Amino acid sequence: TRFTVDTKSDKALQVKTTIRELITYLVYLTILCIVTYGMVESTAYFYTKAMKELFVDVNLEPDGDDTFLDIQSMADFWTYAEGPLLDGLYWEEWYNNKTFSDDELGYIYHENKLLGLPRLRMLRVRSDSCSVAEDFADEITSCYASYSRAIENTSSFGLINGTAWTYHTENELDTRSYWGLLATYGGGGFPQLLNSTKVQANKAIGSLKENLWMDRGTRVVFIDFSVYNANINLFCVVKLVVEFPPSGGAFASSTLWSIKLLRYVTSYDYFVMACEILFVIATIYYTIEEILEAAIGRMKYLKSIWNWLDILMLLLSYVVISFGVYRTITVNSTLDSLLSKPGQHADFETLAFWQMQYNYIIAILVFFAWFKLFKYISFNKTMNQLSSTLSKCAKDVLGFCIMFFIVFFAYAQLGYLIFGAQVKDFSTFGDSIFTLFRIILGDFDFLEMEKANRILGPIFFVTYVFFVFFVLLNMFLAIINDSYSDVKGDTSEGDDEFRISDYLLRGFEK
Amino acid sequence: TRFTVDTKSDKALQVKTTIRELITYLVYLTILCIVTYGMVESTAYFYTKAMKELFVDVNLEPDGDDTFLDIQSMADFWTYAEGPLLDGLYWEEWYNNKTFSDDELGYIYHENKLLGLPRLRMLRVRSDSCSVAEDFADEITSCYASYSRAIENTSSFGLINGTAWTYHTENELDTRSYWGLLATYGGGGFPQLLNSTKVQANKAIGSLKENLWMDRGTRVVFIDFSVYNANINLFCVVKLVVEFPPSGGAFASSTLWSIKLLRYVTSYDYFVMACEILFVIATIYYTIEEILEAAIGRMKYLKSIWNWLDILMLLLSYVVISFGVYRTITVNSTLDSLLSKPGQHADFETLAFWQMQYNYIIAILVFFAWFKLFKYISFNKTMNQLSSTLSKCAKDVLGFCIMFFIVFFAYAQLGYLIFGAQVKDFSTFGDSIFTLFRIILGDFDFLEMEKANRILGPIFFVTYVFFVFFVLLNMFLAIINDSYSDVKGDTSEGDDEFRISDYLLRGFEK
Amino acid sequence: TRFTVDTKSDKALQVKTTIRELITYLVYLTILCIVTYGMVESTAYFYTKAMKELFVDVNLEPDGDDTFLDIQSMADFWTYAEGPLLDGLYWEEWYNNKTFSDDELGYIYHENKLLGLPRLRMLRVRSDSCSVAEDFADEITSCYASYSRAIENTSSFGLINGTAWTYHTENELDTRSYWGLLATYGGGGFPQLLNSTKVQANKAIGSLKENLWMDRGTRVVFIDFSVYNANINLFCVVKLVVEFPPSGGAFASSTLWSIKLLRYVTSYDYFVMACEILFVIATIYYTIEEILEAAIGRMKYLKSIWNWLDILMLLLSYVVISFGVYRTITVNSTLDSLLSKPGQHADFETLAFWQMQYNYIIAILVFFAWFKLFKYISFNKTMNQLSSTLSKCAKDVLGFCIMFFIVFFAYAQLGYLIFGAQVKDFSTFGDSIFTLFRIILGDFDFLEMEKANRILGPIFFVTYVFFVFFVLLNMFLAIINDSYSDVKGDTSEGDDEFRISDYLLRGFEK
Amino acid sequence: TRFTVDTKSDKALQVKTTIRELITYLVYLTILCIVTYGMVESTAYFYTKAMKELFVDVNLEPDGDDTFLDIQSMADFWTYAEGPLLDGLYWEEWYNNKTFSDDELGYIYHENKLLGLPRLRMLRVRSDSCSVAEDFADEITSCYASYSRAIENTSSFGLINGTAWTYHTENELDTRSYWGLLATYGGGGFPQLLNSTKVQANKAIGSLKENLWMDRGTRVVFIDFSVYNANINLFCVVKLVVEFPPSGGAFASSTLWSIKLLRYVTSYDYFVMACEILFVIATIYYTIEEILEAAIGRMKYLKSIWNWLDILMLLLSYVVISFGVYRTITVNSTLDSLLSKPGQHADFETLAFWQMQYNYIIAILVFFAWFKLFKYISFNKTMNQLSSTLSKCAKDVLGFCIMFFIVFFAYAQLGYLIFGAQVKDFSTFGDSIFTLFRIILGDFDFLEMEKANRILGPIFFVTYVFFVFFVLLNMFLAIINDSYSDVKGDTSEGDDEFRISDYLLRGFEK
Ligand SMILES: [Ca+2]
Repeated sequence: TRFTVDTKSDKALQVKTTIRELITYLVYLTILCIVTYGMVESTAYFYTKAMKELFVDVNLEPDGDDTFLDIQSMADFWTYAEGPLLDGLYWEEWYNNKTFSDDELGYIYHENKLLGLPRLRMLRVRSDSCSVAEDFADEITSCYASYSRAIENTSSFGLINGTAWTYHTENELDTRSYWGLLATYGGGGFPQLLNSTKVQANKAIGSLKENLWMDRGTRVVFIDFSVYNANINLFCVVKLVVEFPPSGGAFASSTLWSIKLLRYVTSYDYFVMACEILFVIATIYYTIEEILEAAIGRMKYLKSIWNWLDILMLLLSYVVISFGVYRTITVNSTLDSLLSKPGQHADFETLAFWQMQYNYIIAILVFFAWFKLFKYISFNKTMNQLSSTLSKCAKDVLGFCIMFFIVFFAYAQLGYLIFGAQVKDFSTFGDSIFTLFRIILGDFDFLEMEKANRILGPIFFVTYVFFVFFVLLNMFLAIINDSYSDVKGDTSEGDDEFRISDYLLRGFEK
Repeated sequence: TRFTVDTKSDKALQVKTTIRELITYLVYLTILCIVTYGMVESTAYFYTKAMKELFVDVNLEPDGDDTFLDIQSMADFWTYAEGPLLDGLYWEEWYNNKTFSDDELGYIYHENKLLGLPRLRMLRVRSDSCSVAEDFADEITSCYASYSRAIENTSSFGLINGTAWTYHTENELDTRSYWGLLATYGGGGFPQLLNSTKVQANKAIGSLKENLWMDRGTRVVFIDFSVYNANINLFCVVKLVVEFPPSGGAFASSTLWSIKLLRYVTSYDYFVMACEILFVIATIYYTIEEILEAAIGRMKYLKSIWNWLDILMLLLSYVVISFGVYRTITVNSTLDSLLSKPGQHADFETLAFWQMQYNYIIAILVFFAWFKLFKYISFNKTMNQLSSTLSKCAKDVLGFCIMFFIVFFAYAQLGYLIFGAQVKDFSTFGDSIFTLFRIILGDFDFLEMEKANRILGPIFFVTYVFFVFFVLLNMFLAIINDSYSDVKGDTSEGDDEFRISDYLLRGFEK
Repeated sequence: TRFTVDTKSDKALQVKTTIRELITYLVYLTILCIVTYGMVESTAYFYTKAMKELFVDVNLEPDGDDTFLDIQSMADFWTYAEGPLLDGLYWEEWYNNKTFSDDELGYIYHENKLLGLPRLRMLRVRSDSCSVAEDFADEITSCYASYSRAIENTSSFGLINGTAWTYHTENELDTRSYWGLLATYGGGGFPQLLNSTKVQANKAIGSLKENLWMDRGTRVVFIDFSVYNANINLFCVVKLVVEFPPSGGAFASSTLWSIKLLRYVTSYDYFVMACEILFVIATIYYTIEEILEAAIGRMKYLKSIWNWLDILMLLLSYVVISFGVYRTITVNSTLDSLLSKPGQHADFETLAFWQMQYNYIIAILVFFAWFKLFKYISFNKTMNQLSSTLSKCAKDVLGFCIMFFIVFFAYAQLGYLIFGAQVKDFSTFGDSIFTLFRIILGDFDFLEMEKANRILGPIFFVTYVFFVFFVLLNMFLAIINDSYSDVKGDTSEGDDEFRISDYLLRGFEK
Repeated sequence: TRFTVDTKSDKALQVKTTIRELITYLVYLTILCIVTYGMVESTAYFYTKAMKELFVDVNLEPDGDDTFLDIQSMADFWTYAEGPLLDGLYWEEWYNNKTFSDDELGYIYHENKLLGLPRLRMLRVRSDSCSVAEDFADEITSCYASYSRAIENTSSFGLINGTAWTYHTENELDTRSYWGLLATYGGGGFPQLLNSTKVQANKAIGSLKENLWMDRGTRVVFIDFSVYNANINLFCVVKLVVEFPPSGGAFASSTLWSIKLLRYVTSYDYFVMACEILFVIATIYYTIEEILEAAIGRMKYLKSIWNWLDILMLLLSYVVISFGVYRTITVNSTLDSLLSKPGQHADFETLAFWQMQYNYIIAILVFFAWFKLFKYISFNKTMNQLSSTLSKCAKDVLGFCIMFFIVFFAYAQLGYLIFGAQVKDFSTFGDSIFTLFRIILGDFDFLEMEKANRILGPIFFVTYVFFVFFVLLNMFLAIINDSYSDVKGDTSEGDDEFRISDYLLRGFEK
């Protein structure tokens, strides 16, 4: 993309240009990496883990083995809410049983300030949300379908008054919808805040339980709260979800996001800020260059895959920059408003969500930036051989992939249909695909398949391994092997290529 | 199979025909997929899982780790029957300890209507069913062999009167035989229904236990019941089995089938019905075509593998259609009779069994339907190369397979004989084969082998890996690699083939 | 080996001879398989498993997780001996708490007759069995080395009188030495029989515990007993071992052999006996043939690998036959003497040991017998190609193997030296070798290595995978690939070979 | 390196020389191995394991499942310190509840003498060690950063007097710094010795707990002690570490080193000593030879890779020898001083650390010594072929590796950025690299990735497997395959090489 100058005339000049471009690019890559790593904290994992241990991997009952993730019924949920949840949220005494001073209250693990009040939120569906089959119509009068927004039950119930018994819309609660295991849930619902002392929170939960807050219509309960750790300047946004499928039972899951919302605190943070500014400048510079190239090259410009990569990277860069600006503005205003109203729920979820997307996008940007390195090192003969092999066999590989994926999908579908209702790894078509992928790498549970169907299970497994692992994968190898031999044969003759090492050596000799 | 018109004269016409056929076939495939997916519910897995958690993965005792599957003795069985089983079957109060209203009784997880009464069924063998070795004949007077129908004990025992103490034949109980872990059990036995309240059921079980319902002759106990979930319109047929081998101890297993017996309830179901009718029409159409082709082609017709595939698919289609009709008729009549007699056991097992077979057959039909796609895309050059490779190396691969399987079976047998009595994975010849297969993929338990025999275990493992994983698998690769090189060499010259892409391009140019 | 007739003259005759020999051999193989399978019971695994669950996988304490194999101290041993061991050995009441009648006493799981009395046996070493380092000589006065026969302590101790406190030699006890995890233990020791009622046995164990039967010198305790199950005609010889290394702590292991000592009970057993006689005849026949061949061929005879295989198989056959005769004689006399003296320990261990060796030898014999099949099918062209490839690349593979194993052993030793004291999988040089083998197949625990050494662990792992998995294994593949291409190139020209299929076809045409 | 004599003139002479050198080298290698194995005890693993079971894998509470490694809070730490730690350290009665005699006190497992007094040591950071973000500055007044030496809190606190409440420097305590999971900790801190009876030790711990010895500033607590087992002449240096990250929670880890510090006790030890002397002589001999060679060969000398290997090995040898001398001197003096002052903490950690480094270095020396064997066997033709293949493809492999590692690092970084905060295996960049390596071998946890990000997780996994496992690894294979074919083609013509086997045969014929 940078060959705007005609450098064909002189090989030495071309090499010179290439090296200059390579160095420039390495500087750019370094800045990009600094910016990216400024976003993540190496302590984030330990933070997430500590919070997870307290709220997710905790035993429901002191001498049992079941944790939050093993919740199987509404009764289990109440056991969790009244026990480990309250114990985790409200730290009120030291290990020697001395109660905290007022200053020390409101911190989880002594270190993590609980922001605002935790909130329970529940969603229900209507009792007429599906039609009962004729044969059972006499006996079964109410039918509660799987959750979907259209059939949400928004009427008050139970004690009627109190936030927990009246429906609040998505706007009132200012909450995002959530993609759960079983459905995507709306942002409204029946919310209940938990007060700032353990005794009061316990009472609130007790009242909900006593008056059957959850019943047959309940499809999901969320527990939301956020904490801030000043020591490492990280927020942790915790969302505990218990879904109740129409089949009965319950499925618990959790989302914990440890994110850095306050960006510029330490002096290193300000160095990262400087790099961010350099990154913006570099992006603008590359944009101009690409525009120039495109203007000169026209249709030819679009034919190079490298140019497409450039365009993609620039687009991602602009997304990253825009969000960076947006985040900095929003975070402060949000934080101010949240901190000024202590008796409310502090919803950092939206901010956290977007911050996560931002992290993902910049991660992908860096990923592609690494790949662009290939452009600069392909002048090396061996490199050239390898990339020639790749491009030479590309068409065959594509043909092979079609073949491979027809077989693969046929097996994935078969697996889904045969084992779907029994084996977790085949319970959806998507899982089925990934499971077959994992079989190739040797990660599978044959006994589960055999248990699901003692005849078809082994047949499925053995034929799959034979056709895909033995035959198709080896054919893939044959394709690449053949292409490489060809390329090797071609290049070994024309060996008089100009090489960068020669250039460098000559440089030394001077 | 569709080249009934002579299309050799014009390549363009041939391509046109091919494309037309491909599109027709894709439509057919789509219909087939809709019909298939109309049969399965994505919620079925969650349903099975919820029921499994309640009855199978449940702890025998509140603070223990053993579940239903860990039952090891008759005493354990009674612990299960008196505890988790009754708790799972009879839901009589809410989580706040308020008892249910009468309407709410009889539902598992509040949602799943228990159909009819659950049933325990027991089978026994006679005390003279095997001969004791001479040396022990004096001391050991009774001998209870492994279960087989011929030696079933059908005489009344214990309290004599009461269903549980008198033998009922397969016809009286209207039950299917069952393929268990240790034997295939007949459908008769000593049945005991459990009443519709927990107190009465507990009393019935207590009486059985007190009077030694199970003794040395007992070989298996079944617990059968079915539930219906109106929310998702699925039946779940539950069968819990505890087998008592003649060696002592017990082996528990379970079968849970979540199936859709009432097919046409929602509007989407009626759309599926329409597709089913289209499927029948398509089947008839293809049948006629095949007959015509066969009539024209005669012996030549049978030489093409594609035609054999067509015949297989048609046969499967007719099986599917016949069963579909049969199911629709039977289900309704069965359901009516079952619902009209509430105080009886509701046996959905037979129906469920056939429905499962139906699902399997249609799954296999779709699987083959995907493979038929290859027929239509083999005009593509790369595809052709790949399938040529396959057919070229087919003979060598076959020869290789013979070699491979002699070695493989020799090892499987050796493994079975050396480790059979110690290691589960080698406990039968079949398991031994699958275990060796899994070793190739990297899924094995070396320590178990080493424990079973500290000298032969490692030798067996290392030589097997060397010969099969290192030598034979690589030879397989060599065969495919060599064939591909040959085919590639042949086709790269004759490159002037007519291609579908050319045709499509020309079409655009017009 | 059977080409004693000169068949070179006529190809058709040769094929005829080959087919005749093949069929003869298949008959021989069938007989051999029947004889082999007559030795094993498919129920043996279930028997072993049931006994293992009762004595090995049983929890030490009702609400704990530790089993027999988790015994870590002498205190744990006594917990086991007083609890699960006695509960497993003495079944004295039904699940409804009704005590057994006298006839029913003495059976484990109601089915397995306890033969003779169970026995505890303990071995000790002397307190001066090693020398204390000078620096500690003042403080530490006694030193108990790892067990070896030379330093066994044979003096009476504790209560002095009573079998448990006086040494009995190997001859007195008539016991075999035992190859344990830490050492090979002699057959003598301090034995204690357990009486036939739970109360008395408990008292005996209590007395041992009270008087410190086990102390610092104790190196191992054995618990021995045998049971016989008349239902399936199998003996189970149980040996529970707890070793006490000089480092402190304890290591428990178990050996359970389910074997068929009484061979001829059912009518099928007599059919097997007939086959055994046929096998003896066949062995004699082949012996004579081989002698003839050897006499004719002289030195040439020894050059064929097939002849060596024949000799090996014949030797194994004679070992099998001799032992078969010996076993039949011994078992009966042993059993008679054992059954006539009920108040003693019934030692089936020696018999069981030899029976196991017999089973292993016959298993290996059948294994080789399968390989001999290759001799008869190598006339097929594809087969010939494959075996030519193998023999062609044999020398290169051998060279490769030397290279491979130098690298492999260098890594194995390095792994042993670096991780040996920390990671079980590298704790001996042998384990280290197997672990490296398992890494190639993808079965390893990287985290353990990393934990043992955070720097060398990952370096070791990554370089090993690179050199062995990436480089050496692929070189192996290259060797085989290259050989196959050569062989394929050679044979594709000379394609006019006479084939067995032609012969068979001609046969049909007649 | 040993071709100081010009042997080109006569092939037979050359072979003779080679064989002589090979034999000399094998003798050297044997001595080296004996020296190395004299350093390790095969019982070391069992020793480590026994100690680990007592202190690390022990349950915190008798009926719980959590062990030392599951400590999650300061409260858990105290539970451990007051329970299992004291139970493990102080063995005061036999299994029959009889208390020990005075001689028997002070031994763990009856066998392992506790050297000196165990010690708790704690490190704290200052409350102003980081700056709180502006928004929270009002509410959060103290900030405790991750541990680093610069911000250590060295002021006295709590009860002020008593060692546990005043800071002791690294020199006072004579302790090494420690590389923990979260940071490298200094050797100073607040130490507390535990007295030699359980009652007193319990009281000391109780006092610490009561007065809040650990608070928000605490970053790590060490538990240190050493034991000596006279039976097997091994020391075990135990270090239990509980780190408290600034995020809250706790991370426990342990280091147990079983080492042989007293080298010359048994007669075998003196044999090893003799070998050690021979090793020193051999090292000197080889040093002289290398110097001669280098003097003759000059620059040419440095061009051979074998010579570099020689130099490396000699350097390692001298390090080994120096340390061996140092260790022998230091150990005795240290031990004397330690044993003479019984009421103090016995710090064997430094000695143990250096002994471990010594073991690692000698292990690496032996590793390279094995590789040097290749030099002597490369005269064999097949060997030559293989090593030619390696050297021929080296350049291509290098080019490939660059390509491979760019892709690999791009993925590692992406994985770290996407999954880092959620999945342990990606929680650092280093872990991310190893995890991707392990995926290639089939050891991974797909479900964790999917859970961390339901969209990017599977995409990441599938594309990685496709590009790296399918494409790149196969390309690697193609490179090696191609090189081997070339080399094979070249050498098969020039087959008249002089071989060692010929020489040996001729030797026999004479
Ligand atoms: Ca694998």
